[in-house]
Amino acid sequence: MIKLVIDCFGGDNSPKANIEGSIIALNKFDDLELILSGDSEIINKELLKYTYDKNRVTILHAPLVLTGNDKPTDAVRLKKDSSMIQGIRYLRENDDVDGIVSSGPTGCLVTAAMVRLGRVEGVIRPAFCPIFKTVEGEIVAICDSGANIDVKADMLQQYGIMGSIYLQTVYGINNPRVALLNVGVEEEKGDDVHKEAYQLLKNTKGINFVGNMEGRDLLSGKYDLVVCDGFSGNVLLKTTEGTALELLKKVKKEIMSKAKYKFGALFLKSMFKDMKELMNYQNYGGSVLLGSEKTIVKGHGSLDGEGFSNCVEQAYKIANLKIVDKFKKEIAEAINKGE
Amino acid sequence: MIKLVIDCFGGDNSPKANIEGSIIALNKFDDLELILSGDSEIINKELLKYTYDKNRVTILHAPLVLTGNDKPTDAVRLKKDSSMIQGIRYLRENDDVDGIVSSGPTGCLVTAAMVRLGRVEGVIRPAFCPIFKTVEGEIVAICDSGANIDVKADMLQQYGIMGSIYLQTVYGINNPRVALLNVGVEEEKGDDVHKEAYQLLKNTKGINFVGNMEGRDLLSGKYDLVVCDGFSGNVLLKTTEGTALELLKKVKKEIMSKAKYKFGALFLKSMFKDMKELMNYQNYGGSVLLGSEKTIVKGHGSLDGEGFSNCVEQAYKIANLKIVDKFKKEIAEAINKGE
Repeated sequence: MIKLVIDCFGGDNSPKANIEGSIIALNKFDDLELILSGDSEIINKELLKYTYDKNRVTILHAPLVLTGNDKPTDAVRLKKDSSMIQGIRYLRENDDVDGIVSSGPTGCLVTAAMVRLGRVEGVIRPAFCPIFKTVEGEIVAICDSGANIDVKADMLQQYGIMGSIYLQTVYGINNPRVALLNVGVEEEKGDDVHKEAYQLLKNTKGINFVGNMEGRDLLSGKYDLVVCDGFSGNVLLKTTEGTALELLKKVKKEIMSKAKYKFGALFLKSMFKDMKELMNYQNYGGSVLLGSEKTIVKGHGSLDGEGFSNCVEQAYKIANLKIVDKFKKEIAEAINKGE
Repeated sequence: MIKLVIDCFGGDNSPKANIEGSIIALNKFDDLELILSGDSEIINKELLKYTYDKNRVTILHAPLVLTGNDKPTDAVRLKKDSSMIQGIRYLRENDDVDGIVSSGPTGCLVTAAMVRLGRVEGVIRPAFCPIFKTVEGEIVAICDSGANIDVKADMLQQYGIMGSIYLQTVYGINNPRVALLNVGVEEEKGDDVHKEAYQLLKNTKGINFVGNMEGRDLLSGKYDLVVCDGFSGNVLLKTTEGTALELLKKVKKEIMSKAKYKFGALFLKSMFKDMKELMNYQNYGGSVLLGSEKTIVKGHGSLDGEGFSNCVEQAYKIANLKIVDKFKKEIAEAINKGE
């Protein structure tokens, strides 16, 4: 049995999307058990909408909700009754529970995970690793997309190691091509941290480091894993999403502006649909916090029910693959080998 | 008479594109004089292709070419015979020469400008300010896009001041909306530098600071100027360009894959052309180095002749507007007011 905590509150469409997504996943996997964290009255009311196996759902009452305005350290200390912090506490206190899925504020989730759950031994700081698809449908991962804003070179090195293990184990990518996000492709580019990280990554055995990457090449298909500090990784991720969305929105608007365009677009309908699906981050699950003691999946703030269910499914698969155990072993090995 | 130095070498299509672009601009403005820096034999041979007023063109012989692998400080000291460093020297030694246009390596250009030309009094570090267009065709500027990788909060504050003056003076944007690039919109987001910069910008009189911006909103039309450190600004710029290019490439490929799509696309031809033009950075000139003693325009590395001519035209206009003089006055005022 895989047991997951669901943070039902947090995210633009919560609790509706979070609960809907949880039930979709629950009905898909017979060996999945869910602990729904949040205001029990609201959750119970929401659950009335669905048909599901009630024996596999527990409610963890937590009346408070965290927002982007909550200071992470204060949230962990003072808002213990929030859906996220209660969920993390439950995860810590129950060895048989595998992980948590949350669309709540990123900073709070990272801090709570660090303070309450801890890291895999040897890991300096856990890091988020969201998955994107290139225009040709290949997977490309970004690590870190925002868990740690201030980084040191050895943290970036570990992102390369952890991300490589993740892509190999969960996505079956052999020998993933690892790049360092930088302001130019030449070896000497960037600040001291990036210069040092370049050398560390280059000399890390067991990963396939291919050099610096510029922001323009994320979707090019030349790389499988992009290593970056949490600030610029966040910019990389959101800019890619935003540009794609704005362009698609513009195309739609333009098409509606002229009868000729409307007519032509009829023949391109399936193509536009495919493009939209390709660029829809909701299809790719959430950001996994690599290096954390238990499975933590952060969902995008604007997920709908289907999107949230993809995150639950992702957490289920990771728990099933016992990836945290693999990490413990392989990261220790890789870090020792790399140094 | 406006006099500009042209760095003929540097950029993927140099010297061809740089010389072609220079001649296009020269033939457009009767009061423009150009000093072409680079290997005189190659430049002379290239010039044979064009018809132009020979009295307004001088050649400055400089046989070496800088590349992205040149370390900026070494380039300034040791490669004095390169087209860029010769050009900068000429600019420094001749009071009547207004500026330089170069597509050479960014780091070398910034260092040479700092060391050889100097800054407007009061400016901590000059910063690049490229122009983008939103999907609705509105202007949005990024400052800094890569001149300074390591920043302090007061530098970010100055970017807000300089960028605002630039957008008002050159693009006629009244009271431009200034945003700070960050990992979230809330006031408390980011590292200490960004938190401090937020407060400084908020309290700077004379600029219209509207808060933090996430990468996803660059093309949204909500902002006129995005203030950022050179690293994440570089990522923002290149990711936007790259995502747009990859998507357009993909659409083109998809259309060619099916007869039905090809037929439909016939009716959408002008729309696709408009979209492509909108996303074509070649149309918007180069990145101006705000806060430098003379006009410095950095062209994109992959410009063609038309694109390079837009950069020359931009430098001509800035020189004509006496923007460096305006800067000297207004920056001193704004910085004093802001503090």
